[in-house]
Amino acid sequence: MAMAARDAAGVLAPFKLTRRNPSATDVVIKILYCGICHSDLHQIKNGWGITIFPVVPGHEITGVVEQLGSSVSRFTLGDHVAVGCLVSSCHDCHSCNEGLENYCPKLVWTYNSHLPGGSHTMGGFSTAIVVDESFVINVPAKLPLDTAAPLLCAGITVYSPMKHFGMAEAGRSFGVVGLGGLGHMAVKFGKAFGMKVTVISTSPKKEKEARELLGVDDFLVSTDKEQMAAAAMSIDYIIDTVSAKHALEPLLALLKVNGKMVLVGAADAPLQIAPITLLAGRRMIAGSLIGGIKETQEMMDFCGEHNVTAIVEQITMGSVNEAMERLAKSDVKYRFVIDMSKSESEMQR
Amino acid sequence: MAMAARDAAGVLAPFKLTRRNPSATDVVIKILYCGICHSDLHQIKNGWGITIFPVVPGHEITGVVEQLGSSVSRFTLGDHVAVGCLVSSCHDCHSCNEGLENYCPKLVWTYNSHLPGGSHTMGGFSTAIVVDESFVINVPAKLPLDTAAPLLCAGITVYSPMKHFGMAEAGRSFGVVGLGGLGHMAVKFGKAFGMKVTVISTSPKKEKEARELLGVDDFLVSTDKEQMAAAAMSIDYIIDTVSAKHALEPLLALLKVNGKMVLVGAADAPLQIAPITLLAGRRMIAGSLIGGIKETQEMMDFCGEHNVTAIVEQITMGSVNEAMERLAKSDVKYRFVIDMSKSESEMQR
Repeated sequence: MAMAARDAAGVLAPFKLTRRNPSATDVVIKILYCGICHSDLHQIKNGWGITIFPVVPGHEITGVVEQLGSSVSRFTLGDHVAVGCLVSSCHDCHSCNEGLENYCPKLVWTYNSHLPGGSHTMGGFSTAIVVDESFVINVPAKLPLDTAAPLLCAGITVYSPMKHFGMAEAGRSFGVVGLGGLGHMAVKFGKAFGMKVTVISTSPKKEKEARELLGVDDFLVSTDKEQMAAAAMSIDYIIDTVSAKHALEPLLALLKVNGKMVLVGAADAPLQIAPITLLAGRRMIAGSLIGGIKETQEMMDFCGEHNVTAIVEQITMGSVNEAMERLAKSDVKYRFVIDMSKSESEMQR
Repeated sequence: MAMAARDAAGVLAPFKLTRRNPSATDVVIKILYCGICHSDLHQIKNGWGITIFPVVPGHEITGVVEQLGSSVSRFTLGDHVAVGCLVSSCHDCHSCNEGLENYCPKLVWTYNSHLPGGSHTMGGFSTAIVVDESFVINVPAKLPLDTAAPLLCAGITVYSPMKHFGMAEAGRSFGVVGLGGLGHMAVKFGKAFGMKVTVISTSPKKEKEARELLGVDDFLVSTDKEQMAAAAMSIDYIIDTVSAKHALEPLLALLKVNGKMVLVGAADAPLQIAPITLLAGRRMIAGSLIGGIKETQEMMDFCGEHNVTAIVEQITMGSVNEAMERLAKSDVKYRFVIDMSKSESEMQR
């Protein structure tokens, strides 16, 4: 049982799909929870013009192992596991050899993509999935499977650049631009790494909760020029989660000498930078796209040790279309997660 | 004796100046050579609107120690020494404490700047200079003082980011955008670090000399779209020395996954980047501005060990205005250096 959008109207409706028979290296997973990512919304409406309908979205998947291929060694029945954005890659290129399957030119996305044999991948808005074991993540026993689900995309998307670009240093100041699904995970990782966390947002109304619920140390309203000027050159590292077109200069100006800023949101329109802002402080700006399997497992283990999970709003499939409408208005704190067990009857119409 | 521009016409003419009496920590240097940097041309014409006339340019200075303050310990009379872009900083900020005086908010430039006491700094287009010993660089005995002069700006400007951003790795591919004073130094450092060096230039006519004289491994004409497309994702690191407005996207597309590009030229106009180009390959773009004193000494020692110097065209002050006109047209291979001893009579009019 699954939910699919049939066309670019993007309405999700019950859909029956047949998963492949497990090969020797496959893991059959009973899906218990699936997060809703902004890219799910984008894809069901064919926002990038690349959607193959019908599309079953969902790439923040957690569940339990229900069946195992004959040669699977890393998992046993009943294990808590997770699947993120990727389900296959070439295992042979430079990126794959470095554990960066997310940059493999032949990577296969969890949905709306094609496996080497040609079959069309279908995502986690369904009750089960069959995935090669090399793309399955172990979820530590102490992590709840609902609040762990968003780690698979929102979590790894911010964790990976924080680690790779040396931004996870206790005592440093860390700025998070945008306080949505990705932003609230960046805040949580920043705090877990022992950093002083500042949220930079266009919405002053988010300040109270950011401080009280998320323990944010400072809050800057990005449209308040005085406040931004007073904070110039005060932040070591910034993760920018905003995917709409926005001005980078005021954000770069917040960085100290040697400051680093990483974009994880892909604005459609080009962004502008004044070279002097980079030169004058040996600043850097980089991009990062989700993460590799090794990094994802490392993040998951870190989350188990430090109790890092997402703040979620649980729904069932009966209200998934409404949730999509709310997501379009950023009306969610901070991630929708679908309870798949409770949704079974709603997918049987 | 010196040469100064009196107004924004930028004509250099003989000028008498008095250097300060040396303090206990000062070194009096007889200037033997001074390179001509593009920023000298910019400053004598008040291109940034910040020139204080009369201006004596020059910040690629080499010479010999002629006199020493009473507490100077690092130098003896007759030592070969050099002075670059900086002559003072606060010695107390975070940047200074890390040896990055070039990012100190109170840094004092070698010319067109003011020392803490208020005196107006005058640069290397003169026969002598007095500089605090902490801003004086030792020149290894085996380096010729004429071809070493451009190391003080063109050299350190490219060396510093190559080292800081981890771009100096044997076996890696290294792209150099623009083959002028800075570009040819980047090529030389790339080769000295054991890298495969590709020049990316708008001028196909530079290819022959780049390969034969500089030992460049590959040459891309940036306006040749086919050539650029064929080289996509083939380069690890790029130094971009172009200071005019130019397109970054075609350059970023040359970078492999995890590729790095550093801008050392400050285009006046903002440059555009498409976030997806950064995201899709975990690429970074950074800026860097000359270098600190510790890095400059390290570079100078490296140049002594590896025989790295600039390719220069020697002139005397009698032809400095003509040289400036040629520089404006990039008609120099690859750096003008003024022979100060031979220029004395020409500065006495």
